[in-house]
Formats: sequence, structure tokens, C-alpha cells
Amino acid sequence: MDFMKEALMEARKALMLDEVPVGAIIVKDNKIISRAHNLRETLNSPLAHAEVLAIKDASEKLNSWRLTGCKLYVTLEPCIMCAGAIAQARISEVYIGTIDPAAGACGSILNILQNDNLNLHTKTHWLYNEECSQLLKDFFKWKRK
Amino acid sequence: MDFMKEALMEARKALMLDEVPVGAIIVKDNKIISRAHNLRETLNSPLAHAEVLAIKDASEKLNSWRLTGCKLYVTLEPCIMCAGAIAQARISEVYIGTIDPAAGACGSILNILQNDNLNLHTKTHWLYNEECSQLLKDFFKWKRK
Repeated sequence: MDFMKEALMEARKALMLDEVPVGAIIVKDNKIISRAHNLRETLNSPLAHAEVLAIKDASEKLNSWRLTGCKLYVTLEPCIMCAGAIAQARISEVYIGTIDPAAGACGSILNILQNDNLNLHTKTHWLYNEECSQLLKDFFKWKRK
Repeated sequence: MDFMKEALMEARKALMLDEVPVGAIIVKDNKIISRAHNLRETLNSPLAHAEVLAIKDASEKLNSWRLTGCKLYVTLEPCIMCAGAIAQARISEVYIGTIDPAAGACGSILNILQNDNLNLHTKTHWLYNEECSQLLKDFFKWKRK
């Protein structure tokens, strides 16, 4: 199963709601246990990024704040809040579809998950996907009109 | 009104639940609009830090993801996730009761809110309060027994 494709399906759901199109999937034992998309405007919440919503749902499903052994697939490089949430949740691996040069905290403006001062447990993988970035480019182009 | 004292009252509520004793208050126009304490174990959620819960509640009350003009008082230096959430919420000022040398992201291991690469809107103030740190010291001493 192509999990980034599934994350992209979530990003498209955000787009339909006129939200910045970002989607996330959490996978455990090769099965999707949660899926979410950015809902900041819809929920009027600064916390409602795709990753945070996916983590919330996965924790509820597993009845644990520790998501050890879980993999998160996200279409856009996580921001500081989301990278921090990924670290708090002890997610084992993160797969990222495209960079966020303005606010990405997994290599762009900061590299939260590879900080030697923190005892972190998360490996970062880049799974560059043209569609992840095209979706965002189209969205912002359309918004500027 | 001594808002750090109010945040401390929240921290004590966390302590009674055997949670790491951290409390947070959000103030707008000199009035408390939300109050919360750490509930990570109780809610089994990696997101349930005092600051995140206070931000969630304040956003719901104001019906806005923008908490511009709000001040957050927190008994312990925010972690990366919480500092990121404070930035996402556009909180104007943060008052911190004690440092977290192991995970604090407002000067200890990182300084998220004073990052020149980000267009941030939050001023950090230190309001050192002996009780904020003593509560944590006592908690961890008791836990080690």
C-alpha cells in the first residue's frame, strides 16, 4: 500500500474545505490506524494541523500516549508544533512528502527531530512526491487570485 | 491578580492526579479566559500538556485560532510542541515560572520563540517563582521513592 498516496487523499479533503492542503496518516503494523487533514480554519483551532489530529486519533485508538512503533506519513514537512508533538508521542518514523522552506522544522528552518540535546526516538525519511508540492502550489496560486 | 499563582493552582490540580505538576492560564484584557493543567496520563494523550489544553480552550471561547492579544502564564518552561503551539496561536506574551533544563524550548535546549527565521509574535518573560520549581522537585523526588 502506498501510504503517501493515502496521506495525499487526506490533503485533497483539506483542499475541498479551502484549507491549506496537508494530510497525514499513522501506520502501525502496516495498517492505517488514523488519518487526518488540516482543519485549522474549519475548527478555528491553531492546533488542528493534520499531524496533531492524526496523533490525537491514534492515541485514542491505542489508548496510549506512546505511539512507539508507529509511522507517520505527512504530505508537508511538519512545523515546530507538529515536530514537537511527533517527538512527544514517541513516533518511530516520519515520512515527509515535500519541504516547507518557510516553516518546516525537520530540516528547513530547524531540525527538531535530530537534536542531540534531546533524547529523541524518531527517524526522518524524505519521500519526495511531486503531487504533495503541486497541490500546495496550486492552492496558494488560487488564493492569491 | 497574581496570574502565576492561578497557574500554580492548576499545577497543584495536576499533582493531585499524579501528573507532572504543570499549570497554565490564558489571560485576555486582564481576565482569565482559560485554565488548564497537565493531563497526559489521565487523558492518555501526548498532546495533553497544560499549554496545549489552555490554548484549545481559549480558541474555543474566542472562536478563533488567533490568540493575538492573549498572555499565557505557565509554571514550567514550554517544551518544543508547546512553544510551537504558542507560536501557531499568535499568543502575544508568555510568562514562565521556572526553567526546564532537560526539555525547555524557550531558552534551555532551544529558543523557539526567538528564532529569527520565523515571523513570530510572542514575547517571552521570566517570572521566576520558587513554588513552581519546588512543586516539580517534590513530585520527582516522591516518584523516585
